[in-house]
Amino acid sequence: MEEFSDLVMKTSMEKESSIVVGLDPIISNFPKNLQGNDNICKTIYNFNKLVIDVIHPFVVAIKPQLAYYEVYGSKGILALEKTIKYARSKGLIIINDAKRGDIGSTAEAYSEAFLGESSLSGHAVTVNPFLGSDGIVPFLNKSIDSSKGLFVLLKTSNPSSSELQDLTLYNGNKFYMYLASLLKGMSTSLGTYGFSNLGAVVGATYPEQSKILREYLPNTLFLVPGYGEQGGKLTELEPFFNKNGYGSLISSSRSILYSYIKEEPESWGDLKMSQLKEIIEAACIQFKEDINRIR
Amino acid sequence: MEEFSDLVMKTSMEKESSIVVGLDPIISNFPKNLQGNDNICKTIYNFNKLVIDVIHPFVVAIKPQLAYYEVYGSKGILALEKTIKYARSKGLIIINDAKRGDIGSTAEAYSEAFLGESSLSGHAVTVNPFLGSDGIVPFLNKSIDSSKGLFVLLKTSNPSSSELQDLTLYNGNKFYMYLASLLKGMSTSLGTYGFSNLGAVVGATYPEQSKILREYLPNTLFLVPGYGEQGGKLTELEPFFNKNGYGSLISSSRSILYSYIKEEPESWGDLKMSQLKEIIEAACIQFKEDINRIR
Repeated sequence: MEEFSDLVMKTSMEKESSIVVGLDPIISNFPKNLQGNDNICKTIYNFNKLVIDVIHPFVVAIKPQLAYYEVYGSKGILALEKTIKYARSKGLIIINDAKRGDIGSTAEAYSEAFLGESSLSGHAVTVNPFLGSDGIVPFLNKSIDSSKGLFVLLKTSNPSSSELQDLTLYNGNKFYMYLASLLKGMSTSLGTYGFSNLGAVVGATYPEQSKILREYLPNTLFLVPGYGEQGGKLTELEPFFNKNGYGSLISSSRSILYSYIKEEPESWGDLKMSQLKEIIEAACIQFKEDINRIR
Repeated sequence: MEEFSDLVMKTSMEKESSIVVGLDPIISNFPKNLQGNDNICKTIYNFNKLVIDVIHPFVVAIKPQLAYYEVYGSKGILALEKTIKYARSKGLIIINDAKRGDIGSTAEAYSEAFLGESSLSGHAVTVNPFLGSDGIVPFLNKSIDSSKGLFVLLKTSNPSSSELQDLTLYNGNKFYMYLASLLKGMSTSLGTYGFSNLGAVVGATYPEQSKILREYLPNTLFLVPGYGEQGGKLTELEPFFNKNGYGSLISSSRSILYSYIKEEPESWGDLKMSQLKEIIEAACIQFKEDINRIR
């Protein structure tokens, strides 16, 4: 099976794209005729299918955010399973944004869920490193077995990420740099394009840190949230890419999915499918082109 | 609605117990006649129901570990929903060990899933603080609205928890103490028994740190994993309790659930329901009494 990092690179080159669209289904944001009846699974799946149909030629990957499925319990998870299956049929890479972190056999169960043979399994998963290498290695081992990928949270996009991640240590180093050194020390082989299957999450809102991290981790794919809706600016994304214009996947969720709310603030609730598709497609193409201008 | 911390304290006093049993269903550990056919949901639910029937008089709470359900996708999550419903009918407190951590509306969705009206919602959830207060406050706000509880990972029980959580900061303080000060600074009201609904996870394997943390956070309920199977010793649990013998819930999972494997190493696969129940009950009562001896 092709290594995750190679799959990302090949897809990125073929589609001339470095973007990922997050699938965060929020039913109250759907136009009325898509809010459906009581069948939550069908309602979510139909919306995701519409989005996938529109965006798949332009994006490297989709990034389902687990919270928006879990909130509907088993029905939501069923919608995610169906979404993953459909996305696969469109040749899309699936990065489950689960931010799971646990130890021992529990971490093995999570890695089986997201990188194994389970119905939820995609091509990569986001991982929370708070528990130390005990919480990362089981995912890493699974990724080696399955040729899949993981993105470890390194410097997140939110305002208070500084509270813990930017703490200064006894030797003057920053906490996130120490974490970066832990990741660098984890042995992983590199794919054909020079990247590892062990990636990192680095927020678009911290361009200075990203520059340092990009130089320190030249073989690490970055998954980059926080562009647009969270205030990350286009020009500040430049340091996320290497000199060849690769190495980062820029993610956006709600500003693409719900672009019609901004575009048609008065009448979005009554939009027809065809109008919806046009607006989402235009927002996705604009996103892709914006990123391509600076990388 | 009764505050979570009061519910814990009342239950603890009524049952004369400070123990929690984790529900980590691992089908290959079930006796043959419980491994069922292909109906994974039913197989897991039947085992959990058997365990709940046996242990409910002796435990303050059950602690389902989400990974072991998620690995079976929507079928596993359905088994968890049914388990939660059944546990409620037995008057049990449910602490979902999900270790979720995210920001903004995503964290709100997780907190709705686990502390709201969702089918997965119990009485409390474990939360990962890596993202800083942005990742904690949405859960805290939800717990205030719903009178439910959260346990924030503070010093986890695994060997490599020291890698990040014990880092020494520029001022000589330890990382986990800085995190403890963040939690202390979060305004929460106290219940009738003097405890907050904002609890913390502190591993049984770190008695020195727990002593410092117990003194620093006198109003914080500790959820304590790592006793037994991970090497935490009985006498080392003393500092987890205050002078009245309260303040901590000691958790054990597999050494109770799968006590029959240790008890009957040759023939556990062929055990009958009645034998299984007897062995699990004895292990649970022993666990409860052991903890009561030192608190």
